[in-house]
Amino acid sequence: MDNRPIGIFDSGIGGLTVMREVMEQLPYENIIYLGDTARIPYGSKSEQTIKKFSHQCATFLKNKDVKTIVVACNTASSNALDMLTREFDIPLIGVIDPGARTASKATKTGRIGVIGTTATINSYAYQKKIMEYLSTAEVIGIPCPLFVPIVEEGWEYSQVAVLTAEKYLTELIEHDVDTLVLGCTHYPILRHTIKKVLGPQVTLVNPAFETAKDLKNLLIEKDILNGNYDKPRYEYYATDAPERFRRIGGNFLKKEIDNLYEITIDNL
Amino acid sequence: MDNRPIGIFDSGIGGLTVMREVMEQLPYENIIYLGDTARIPYGSKSEQTIKKFSHQCATFLKNKDVKTIVVACNTASSNALDMLTREFDIPLIGVIDPGARTASKATKTGRIGVIGTTATINSYAYQKKIMEYLSTAEVIGIPCPLFVPIVEEGWEYSQVAVLTAEKYLTELIEHDVDTLVLGCTHYPILRHTIKKVLGPQVTLVNPAFETAKDLKNLLIEKDILNGNYDKPRYEYYATDAPERFRRIGGNFLKKEIDNLYEITIDNL
Repeated sequence: MDNRPIGIFDSGIGGLTVMREVMEQLPYENIIYLGDTARIPYGSKSEQTIKKFSHQCATFLKNKDVKTIVVACNTASSNALDMLTREFDIPLIGVIDPGARTASKATKTGRIGVIGTTATINSYAYQKKIMEYLSTAEVIGIPCPLFVPIVEEGWEYSQVAVLTAEKYLTELIEHDVDTLVLGCTHYPILRHTIKKVLGPQVTLVNPAFETAKDLKNLLIEKDILNGNYDKPRYEYYATDAPERFRRIGGNFLKKEIDNLYEITIDNL
Repeated sequence: MDNRPIGIFDSGIGGLTVMREVMEQLPYENIIYLGDTARIPYGSKSEQTIKKFSHQCATFLKNKDVKTIVVACNTASSNALDMLTREFDIPLIGVIDPGARTASKATKTGRIGVIGTTATINSYAYQKKIMEYLSTAEVIGIPCPLFVPIVEEGWEYSQVAVLTAEKYLTELIEHDVDTLVLGCTHYPILRHTIKKVLGPQVTLVNPAFETAKDLKNLLIEKDILNGNYDKPRYEYYATDAPERFRRIGGNFLKKEIDNLYEITIDNL
């Protein structure tokens, strides 16, 4: 048993969709969430810079004495999880492996699509991991940089969203994929529009849900669940614009955000 | 006469549209350009963070012994130019004043629109500056966060761009503006689509062009033009992803990018 908090970090607010799943599946765990809103987005940046920023995020959480770290950002998981696992001596979990494993189980035809930021797709992290689980899989990755700003504008049901989805997803329709990994934390909010474009026969995989399941198994396996069944404490840290974090983040989390602090991490 | 270079900085590559105008209007000046691509965009961030990042950019250029600094980013000009002018003892010029002055001269009805990032519009910098030149002006500011990713995708003539422009610009049509300031360095690339939506009666103001004119006047007035008429030297610095900077930036500059260096400035 271990009553220390779980640490979760993301480049901004998107990782709150992962936190929401963790809160549902692990209702007694204390959680510290860090959003690096000063340097968001990571998705258009280089591997080297994503590694540097991720290391600073993990260092901040480690200094808060967390028992485990969830890398809730697909871009950071794709580019930096291996490095973080080597450098930090606590259990770390990312969103790629749970998403890839679920997709490889869900597919019937072996044709799987992955959508995400440019950095996530260019890292081939999902593509490689899916092939480890299903070596015969045919994986098509498509970067969709407009999806995040569309979600942040609240335009997920607009004609702009539909036309954008059609432009990005045509190649997946041509390849007749039967499974699609929503490889960015913002994308589940667009799932109705994506489904409309791809058709009902395509299974959508949400790595946030699968990651929370894996985290629960990890805590059980290492025997570090919180033994205290009081109301848990949630703390939020943002590196910029806390009011925006509270407002937009509240929609992602479906919950009021209290205990929110603005902090600096670029010197860690 | 002063043969030291002009320094230009921006949150990324957009400021190269300003550099291009400076190269045309001041063909004998040496120029050092800094793009803070590691932390792009500034437009969705807080005033405090924009000030901090801008100070680091200006410090980097000052250390390169530039004779003047052009703040080529609308967001940084809106939020940080006053602070930079107080803290640095060399002439600084931003894009807001030239754009506002030109718009206030161009309008016949006094109804002026300004489009830009969320941070630029929320700062009211254009709105206030236009009112200084034309106190009877009615200024309507609209943040257009999707325009930058649309330009970076190369989708400026797409149906997505047209529909997005319609959503953002309807309010300007309802207010019957006769002049529109393109208050973000990426937006001139969308001018055909914007013109199509607004109609030919609306005058579009490009602050990049006006800023280069003001810079030329400043150098003449202070007697710090370069007296050497050799081929000038251009140097480029990016805080991340130099290959992307070279590729996309080349389109903005309409010129090959040589002498490009990757650097770190977050400790300045």
